[in-house]
Amino acid sequence: MSHRTNPIVSVQYPPWVAELVDFNRAYATDEEKMRLAISVSRANVERGTGGPFGAAIFERDSGRLVSVGMNSVVRLNNCTLHGEMVAFMMAQQVVGSFSLNMPSLPPHELFTSCEPCAMCLGGTLWSGVKRVVYGAGREDASRLNFEEGPVFPESYKYLEDRGIEIVRDVLRPEARAVLELYRTMSGKIYNG
Amino acid sequence: MSHRTNPIVSVQYPPWVAELVDFNRAYATDEEKMRLAISVSRANVERGTGGPFGAAIFERDSGRLVSVGMNSVVRLNNCTLHGEMVAFMMAQQVVGSFSLNMPSLPPHELFTSCEPCAMCLGGTLWSGVKRVVYGAGREDASRLNFEEGPVFPESYKYLEDRGIEIVRDVLRPEARAVLELYRTMSGKIYNG
Repeated sequence: MSHRTNPIVSVQYPPWVAELVDFNRAYATDEEKMRLAISVSRANVERGTGGPFGAAIFERDSGRLVSVGMNSVVRLNNCTLHGEMVAFMMAQQVVGSFSLNMPSLPPHELFTSCEPCAMCLGGTLWSGVKRVVYGAGREDASRLNFEEGPVFPESYKYLEDRGIEIVRDVLRPEARAVLELYRTMSGKIYNG
Repeated sequence: MSHRTNPIVSVQYPPWVAELVDFNRAYATDEEKMRLAISVSRANVERGTGGPFGAAIFERDSGRLVSVGMNSVVRLNNCTLHGEMVAFMMAQQVVGSFSLNMPSLPPHELFTSCEPCAMCLGGTLWSGVKRVVYGAGREDASRLNFEEGPVFPESYKYLEDRGIEIVRDVLRPEARAVLELYRTMSGKIYNG
């Protein structure tokens, strides 16, 4: 147990990222980008490092991969470390800025294997990404008793009004299959 | 700039926490607890380590202080590090669990100098705290052009329906005074 006066929280990728994720190619289409996010979600389940959720952040126009994120709540004892949040903080660490929306930076986009929860949707607004693409929907997650929290149609409108594009259901069956795999493997439902 | 393949995000308190915050006393009343959260928000501004937002997590019944949190977005180049989120992750690091709502743990509560944004309200749900107490309101923050994001009356109802008590306006003028101090000092409005 850490001492209360000076706890240190350290967030790193699990070791399999180095073998699985190719940071040196360009990801050209929405499907290629989503396929990466889904492969991260699947590896997280198969390697036993967390819940069935994966994400990735790209430079929107070049398709350059900036970061990935995987649910790390249980692995790192930290409720804030959903896949999207890990992707945001890693991207900001890489570019050296608290926002991905800076005059010196190209536009960025988030791909996530499953619809963001309330926390991650709020974080999306602060992250500076200009575009959000998701695979599985909240109904798919609910079927596994993963809760999305207070997200309403107006929540999406709020983001869209601020210039963030939302794209739904890209490779949804492939994304949902990882949720089903997790259920089969009887994973821990930490938001249940 | 960190290498993309293995970024490391490290979150620690700024050094003034060790001098300012007394982890060895019990905080008996809501006012004492809120006064600590406000003193953290004020120190963050006066020491130049971040935005005017402070938080603290206590064991609800004993008044034992578990963690504090201060806005660390600019200091650590990380949009997720609002005061409440830092408090959650530090508390979970201290107790060694991804949730503060465990059979082995006493009930915990969050005190925050200002009404939580959409991200932090979502995080509140996952954190496991049973009670949220805030000082300044969203209108006070909006006056400084700090945005709260997609938070609606139904968002609070969602948390309350899940057994989380919400208490508003505790020491609100003192909390608001720190927002005003920040404005006077022309702090950076990173969500603007």
